[in-house]
Formats: sequence, structure tokens, C-alpha cells
Amino acid sequence: MRARSVDTPMSYVRNTWYVASWAEDVGTDKPSAVSILGEPIVLWRSEGHLIALEDRCVHRLAALSLGRCEGPNLRCMYHGMVFNAAGRVIKIPGQDLIPPHAKVHAYPVIEKDSWAWVWMGDPAKADEALIPPAIGFDNPDWLLDRSFLDYQAEAQLINDNLLDLSHAAFVHANSFQADPEVANVPPNIEILPRGIRFTRWITDQDGDVLRRTGDKVDSYQTYDYLIPGILTLWNGQFAAGTARACNFGKPDYADAIGAVVCTNQAVTPTGKGTTRYFFSSGPHRAHGDEKMRDFLMSITRQAFAEDKVVIEAQQKIIDSTPNPVIMPIAHDRSVVLFHRMVERLCREEKETLTQAG
Amino acid sequence: MRARSVDTPMSYVRNTWYVASWAEDVGTDKPSAVSILGEPIVLWRSEGHLIALEDRCVHRLAALSLGRCEGPNLRCMYHGMVFNAAGRVIKIPGQDLIPPHAKVHAYPVIEKDSWAWVWMGDPAKADEALIPPAIGFDNPDWLLDRSFLDYQAEAQLINDNLLDLSHAAFVHANSFQADPEVANVPPNIEILPRGIRFTRWITDQDGDVLRRTGDKVDSYQTYDYLIPGILTLWNGQFAAGTARACNFGKPDYADAIGAVVCTNQAVTPTGKGTTRYFFSSGPHRAHGDEKMRDFLMSITRQAFAEDKVVIEAQQKIIDSTPNPVIMPIAHDRSVVLFHRMVERLCREEKETLTQAG
Amino acid sequence: MRARSVDTPMSYVRNTWYVASWAEDVGTDKPSAVSILGEPIVLWRSEGHLIALEDRCVHRLAALSLGRCEGPNLRCMYHGMVFNAAGRVIKIPGQDLIPPHAKVHAYPVIEKDSWAWVWMGDPAKADEALIPPAIGFDNPDWLLDRSFLDYQAEAQLINDNLLDLSHAAFVHANSFQADPEVANVPPNIEILPRGIRFTRWITDQDGDVLRRTGDKVDSYQTYDYLIPGILTLWNGQFAAGTARACNFGKPDYADAIGAVVCTNQAVTPTGKGTTRYFFSSGPHRAHGDEKMRDFLMSITRQAFAEDKVVIEAQQKIIDSTPNPVIMPIAHDRSVVLFHRMVERLCREEKETLTQAG
Repeated sequence: MRARSVDTPMSYVRNTWYVASWAEDVGTDKPSAVSILGEPIVLWRSEGHLIALEDRCVHRLAALSLGRCEGPNLRCMYHGMVFNAAGRVIKIPGQDLIPPHAKVHAYPVIEKDSWAWVWMGDPAKADEALIPPAIGFDNPDWLLDRSFLDYQAEAQLINDNLLDLSHAAFVHANSFQADPEVANVPPNIEILPRGIRFTRWITDQDGDVLRRTGDKVDSYQTYDYLIPGILTLWNGQFAAGTARACNFGKPDYADAIGAVVCTNQAVTPTGKGTTRYFFSSGPHRAHGDEKMRDFLMSITRQAFAEDKVVIEAQQKIIDSTPNPVIMPIAHDRSVVLFHRMVERLCREEKETLTQAG
Repeated sequence: MRARSVDTPMSYVRNTWYVASWAEDVGTDKPSAVSILGEPIVLWRSEGHLIALEDRCVHRLAALSLGRCEGPNLRCMYHGMVFNAAGRVIKIPGQDLIPPHAKVHAYPVIEKDSWAWVWMGDPAKADEALIPPAIGFDNPDWLLDRSFLDYQAEAQLINDNLLDLSHAAFVHANSFQADPEVANVPPNIEILPRGIRFTRWITDQDGDVLRRTGDKVDSYQTYDYLIPGILTLWNGQFAAGTARACNFGKPDYADAIGAVVCTNQAVTPTGKGTTRYFFSSGPHRAHGDEKMRDFLMSITRQAFAEDKVVIEAQQKIIDSTPNPVIMPIAHDRSVVLFHRMVERLCREEKETLTQAG
Repeated sequence: MRARSVDTPMSYVRNTWYVASWAEDVGTDKPSAVSILGEPIVLWRSEGHLIALEDRCVHRLAALSLGRCEGPNLRCMYHGMVFNAAGRVIKIPGQDLIPPHAKVHAYPVIEKDSWAWVWMGDPAKADEALIPPAIGFDNPDWLLDRSFLDYQAEAQLINDNLLDLSHAAFVHANSFQADPEVANVPPNIEILPRGIRFTRWITDQDGDVLRRTGDKVDSYQTYDYLIPGILTLWNGQFAAGTARACNFGKPDYADAIGAVVCTNQAVTPTGKGTTRYFFSSGPHRAHGDEKMRDFLMSITRQAFAEDKVVIEAQQKIIDSTPNPVIMPIAHDRSVVLFHRMVERLCREEKETLTQAG
């Protein structure tokens, strides 16, 4: 493989749903401020529904996220303009006339699987069916907890990290105590319409930090990594021989003998060189309890802090390198496939804009 | 009204007096460093007189503000050059010859009304009569205390804020507990040669945080806002009917029944995107005491911290907006008038420079 | 003398040895990260020998300094590549083929006089004989301690500072309590092939902070300042009359009556506007003990903190000055000579590159 330039600035798909927040963190009484692709966004609930507006008053560009919820509306607390849930100004103190262009962008926003999803592209194309599947806190089968990290690094570097879990053998040698074998055996890769599916059996292993009994086990892991950067993963341990018995296909949770856990993760580019990384993890209720969930979350936090150190250092080196080039290796197959998918979608968006213009 | 681009970078008048410091903070023993319009300035007293020199040694650009006062002179404490009060080098250790160009700029500087005023433009045009009037600590009628805030925002945004006090109804709902009516009734505006005069009666109101008795009062407020960003304000409460009795003209302090307070404020652009905001406040001695002064200063500090949150957030949004445009409203009349005045003066300065060149 | 532009960005010689670290701080078990001329470098020991590699994995530009020492090799702990001491990749997890270009730059590095010296230029020209002499901790005659400071300033400004010790009379009036005479009497200057030698007798003085007895002494000081920014100095006090007796030439340590101390200093440009400043100091064993060494180090630390305040303020003023010019004075002779030497070497390097290209 040839050396490849690192794309700087990296590009991101716009016609897609980004996770803006955990849905339960968006309040009815007080708006909150987030940022996606460098755009300031104010979130709040109007009559129970999530609202996502451009966080920039039409008047003098004050932050609406410092405003006050008034019934279904949001008042800018600088000079008192009131915005409705569609982003339209409905009151200007001191004058009766409200100009028709007095409105801010209202982003399509949907509450689903415990996340607030915001559509950053052409609102006419906002299709709920494009929201990647995830497991929310309301799912009765799983016992989840959640957290997030703010990165001083491009979202793309975190995507790259999650598209190649061979790093676990090195970055997470301490936390997850992953079998070094994961760095030698590549997972099976299946190309999905908007992402990649990974599956992997590791047979006759000793188990991992979640469960070690002395008996050898067959370990199964599968995850989807979908545009713009959503990961849903589950893994489990099965009696040795299960992999072969199911012909290295997908096993049934019910047959697992332990360590059936899932994780949901979302990588949201907040601005140039900054990213918010949301994650939840926990065991299947048939295979674990609150104690296991808390243990899993504690090593997950430790592991993701390990990633953060590595990736933020990587970002600094890229930033200080005049012409950064990478040298793809065998494990990068999925990274390369995902990059091509992103590049194709970005190119299509650009062409659509050009034709429209 | 049409949307208007935010001027970035914003421009400021140079042929004007800026407040550099509270005069009593400028010492005889030790110089101090300030910055105006991005220019580093060292202040000290030579034989009792305020001196303002370019804070940049002619030799290797060391900070004279780290120097030592020696009698009427200032010694750079890097390699020992001595500067007199006119900014001229009068001693160079290790050599006898002093080149004639060995001098730094000496800014015209005047101590007046408790402030150190520095002229940033052509010294030949420095006219003491252009110093805006203010009330100093030596004024026997008022009982003042003082403070300052450093902003991470352009001075222009703070000027805009102070040129439209309708924001008080929203930004200061907690601190000043202003009558929401101020956002509905615009003040009377009078154009002055270098600024704007505001006057306003609000009749039959309940009073404000300074004084509430249960009786209705007529409340009067007047302030001048002058180039480059100097505010002098006083207000008072009068018996209901006073406004009508004086034909909505200027009342006499002596007739007030309470809340006669004044405030002096100065907005000094220190550099690109940074500002120092000086203010003093207090009651008229006939209408208040130290206790009222301290109470007033405490809510003033609270209120100005409220402004700072709003304006620094506004600056961040402007900075992150590719083509920031504002949408003026009725209350912006004074803001627009003041901007035009600044723009005219900046244009005239530029033309003078071009003709001179 | 005419005013001269400050070179911004300042340039530094590449075909020279820079101090990267105290040698004893480079470990066998754990790599460490340094930066020279903006280039990230990982240091470690392989089979006892110092190794300095480009700190940037060929794969995805992760920091090798976050890696793990494995025998004589270094493993990148992101995806597990192993680098040998020559910077060549010898293992890629998940693939057998190792591309021939899979290597990072290996900087020539030498351990000498307690420092790790790294050659930043053409490796073919790395000549150990160009390492400036210094006194290490293994030298039996001297009793040294060490420290370093990180500056937010260009290395050139620190070089300038050390090339003209007349500043001691002002910057170090408190710490070293230098004789003000040092600012009046210039030292003798001798041009060396790659630097400047300073010598100075000050006769009939009171001594300094290290030793004051009431008797007058003749004080001798000599130091070399060599490319890229290495200072080795020693001074001592001698009986009054010694200067004349040895015809103002070099005296013998053995004749000193006190204050025989040496210092070794290295100024390493780490990046744009940042510098690491290494220093060791201490007395000659025949003229001092641990107590004197600790006292000397404590005033040295105080003195170098004084320099840092002055130089970092100077850097800020230079950065904020549109066209910074300096006005050289008599004491700047050595500064000007050293700058010319640096400029000549930089020009020669450029010409060599052009001819090679």
C-alpha cells in the first residue's frame, strides 16, 4: 500500500443525523448549548418535544442558549426577542413590526434510543429511517449506564480508532486486558449501505477481564460502525466449540455462558479539532446485574481515557507535521472503506449543491 | 431595516482620550503596564505628574513597565537605559553617545476626575477640552466606589450594550430588578457633538431595587454616552406627578425623594478582542450613605458580571460566524447613530493621514 | 549604529548538536518525549545506548513516546508496530510484509558531559568533535547540581541575553548582587570558530553574594558561548593585585581565594516561540562544598526566574509590534557577532541544500 495524505481539514457528511446530547439532559425549563460541525445549537423542549435552533439571535448574535424558556417559546435574554419552536421571532420589545426574515435555522431533531439526533444537512432530506439503530435506556433487555468525553482531536481520528479494534491489544492492555490475538486475527468485514459490520470469533481463549473461569471459551464480538460515527456492539462468551457448531456464524445470546455486554457510542465533531464522544455500556439482564454494569463502566472509562491520551497526542503530531502522510496496513481495510464512503457522500453533497446553485 | 454586517475588525477613533487607569493606581515608585488599542503603555508619576510612554525599550524591546523609577526618570531594568519623562533616552550604560532617535513615544496624558486619560492620536491635536465630563472621588456631592472588569470581547460590543439600556429588563432582571417597561418605552435621544444624550421619565412605577415604598413614583434617568466610550449617568425617584409638573423635562436632584445615584463608566479597547471596563457608582450625599453606596456597588458588580457573560458569549458567536450580520431594531437607533459618528471620525482621521502622506 | 529589524521568524543552525535532555533522565524502561526546532523526538536507551527517533509512527502518526520499550526495540502502543534502534519497523501486527520505507528518522545522538546531544542536520555531517565542551557530573573537580526552565520565548532572545552579561547589573541586582561596574566595563571578546570567548577582570571590588570578606579582591570571569547556544563559564576571586600580576591574563584556579564556581548552560529551541533552558552550577571542590553548591543553585534559580520574566515580556512586545526594530548599543558587539555567525551558517546550509537539489 502507498503512503496517503491525511486530509486536513477533514470533511464530514452533512446529510446525516448527529448525536447532539443524551435526550434526558435536554430540559424544559432551561436551554442548553451544544456545537456540531462548528455550528452553535441551542436545545430545549417545547411542549415535550425536542427543539434544536441555531444558537445565534438574529438581532446582535447573542446566545439563545443563555435565554429563558417561556411556555413553548424561547426568549433571548439580551434584548428580549421571543422565538417559537420553529425558530421564528414572534416578539420584539419596543416595536410592533416583525420582519419576515427574523428567524433562525431550526434543525430537524428527533429523540430516539435515549439520544437527541440532529440533522445537519438539507432539512428536506431529513429521513428518520437514516438514524442508526442503538440500544436506549428504555430497552428492557439491557442494563446500561452512560458518560461522555470531550476530545481535543478531530472526530475522524476517533472514527479511525473505532474502525480498527486491533488497537485494544496495545492501548487497552491494562484496562480491558484484551487477548493479544485480536491484533493478529482480523475480523470479518461486511459492507453495509452506510457503514461496516464487523464480526469475529476467537476460539479456545482464556476469557477476558469480564470473566475468567479457567475453562477455555469461544468469544464472539460483532459491531456496526455507521455514518457519521455510530457504534453498536455486543459480545459474549460461549462454551468452547460453539463457534464451530454454528459454523462461525452469529450465535444466540441465550446460549452464552457469560460476558454478554453491549455498548453504544457516538462520535460528534463539535468544531475544528474538537469532538464529543458519547458512550453507554452494560450487560444483558440475563447475564449480569448492576454490579457488573458498574464494573464494566469503570473499566470502560479507564479504557477510553487511554484512547484519549493516544489520540490527542496523535492530533498534536499531525498538526505539527507539514505534510502528514499515513502508511495504511492490513488492519486499516475497514478504515479505508469507511473513509471512501465518507468521501463519496461528501462529494455527492457538493455536486448536489453545485447543481442546485 | 436591513441586515447589516458586523464590522470585523471593528475600528476605533484615535484622536480621543481613553481612560488608561484609575489615577490613584498610578504610582511614583513603581511603573504599571496598560494596553490601549493594542499598544503597550507604561504609566508612572514623574515629579507628581502622570507620564504615559510607549512600553517598549528602543534597545531590544524590553518592557519598561518592568523598570525602576529613579527620581523623575524611568530605568529599563534589562540593560539599564534611562528614559526621561519625555520618553528620551538620557543614559546608556557602557557608551557615552546617545543617538538622537533614542526615544519612545510619549502619549499626552492628563489626570482628571480620578482617571488617567491618554490621547492615542496625533499629539498635536490633543485637546484637554475633549475629555468627557465625569464625576471623580474628589467631588463633594457624591459618595462613590469603583472597580473594573477585563472583557474577552471587543469594546464596540460593550459600547453597543450601554447605548441601549433596554437590555436591563432582561440581562439585569435579577440584579437591578429593572421595570420591564424600560424595554417598551424608548428614551428621548439628543445628538451631542461627540455622543448621545438619553433622558427618560417612567411615571407611576413601583420603584426599583434601590427603593420601594409601596407608593408609586416617577422615575427619571439621564446619561451621556460620549466618544470613545464614556458614560455618565444619574437617576432619581420623584413623587408621582413630578414628570408632568416639570413637563417631562429635567428635574432637580433636590426635589428627589430617593434613589439619587450616579455612575461613571469607561470602555477602553485594550487589544484585538479585549477590553477593560472601568466603573464607579454611588449615591448623592443628600440621598444616601456608605451603606447605600456599598449596596449599590454590590448589585452593580452582579449586574456587570451578567453583562459580561452575555457579551463574551456574543463575541464567541460572532467569531465563529463566517459572515456575521445583525438585524437592527427600533431600540438600536442610538447604537446606529453612535456607530455612524465613530465611522465618520475614523474616516476623517484616515483622510487626514492620506493628505499628510 | 542603525536600527535593525528583529528577524521574525528567527532562524537556527541545523548542522549542530542540540542538548535534548540531561542524559540521566533518559530511561531504558520508558521512552520520553522532547521537541527540538519544532520536531517531536522520542528518546530512550537501547542496550545502554541513547536513541533519538522521530516521535511519529509511520502508520497513523501516533506518538512513539507513548510506546513501550521491548528489549532493544520500541513498540508503538497504538497498533503495535515495533521499531528498532535505527528507526526501522521490524514488526507489523496482522501482516507479514514490512514495506522498505517503513522507518522513521533516527537522529544522531551522543551522550557526553551529562547531556544527550542530538544532531538536527544532515546525518552525514554529524561530527562528534563539534560538540561544545562542558563540565559533566562525572568531572571530579566540580560539585554540580542542575535544573531547567521552559520559556515562552524564542531561543534567540535567551542567546542574546547570555551574550551580554551587562544585564546582570539590572536584572540580577537582587539575586547575584552583581557589581554595577559590569555594565560599564565591557569584557574582552575573542572570536572562536563557532562562538565567542569572553574574559573579564574587575579589580579592587568588594566581592559578590558568594563571598564578601571586607577585603578588596580581583574578580575574574571567563566563558565561551558556542553554536547553537551553549555556555560554559567559570569565575573566581583572587587577592587584589592578581590581575596586574598575571598581566590581566588567565589566572590559575589554584591561586583563587574563593568563589570558584562554574556553570554549564544550554539553550534549545523546542518550537516556534518556545525554548528549554538547561543549566548546572556549582563550586570547584577545592573552593566549596555541598552547602555552597546548594546556595549557588538557589540564587541561580532566583536569577534565571528574573531573566524569564524579562525575556517573556520582551517576546510578547515583539509579537505585538508590527515592525519590530532594535537599536544596538556598545554592549551588543558580541550579540551582533554571534548573529552574523548564525546567519552565515544558516546561509551555507541553504546553499548546500540548493546545490544538492
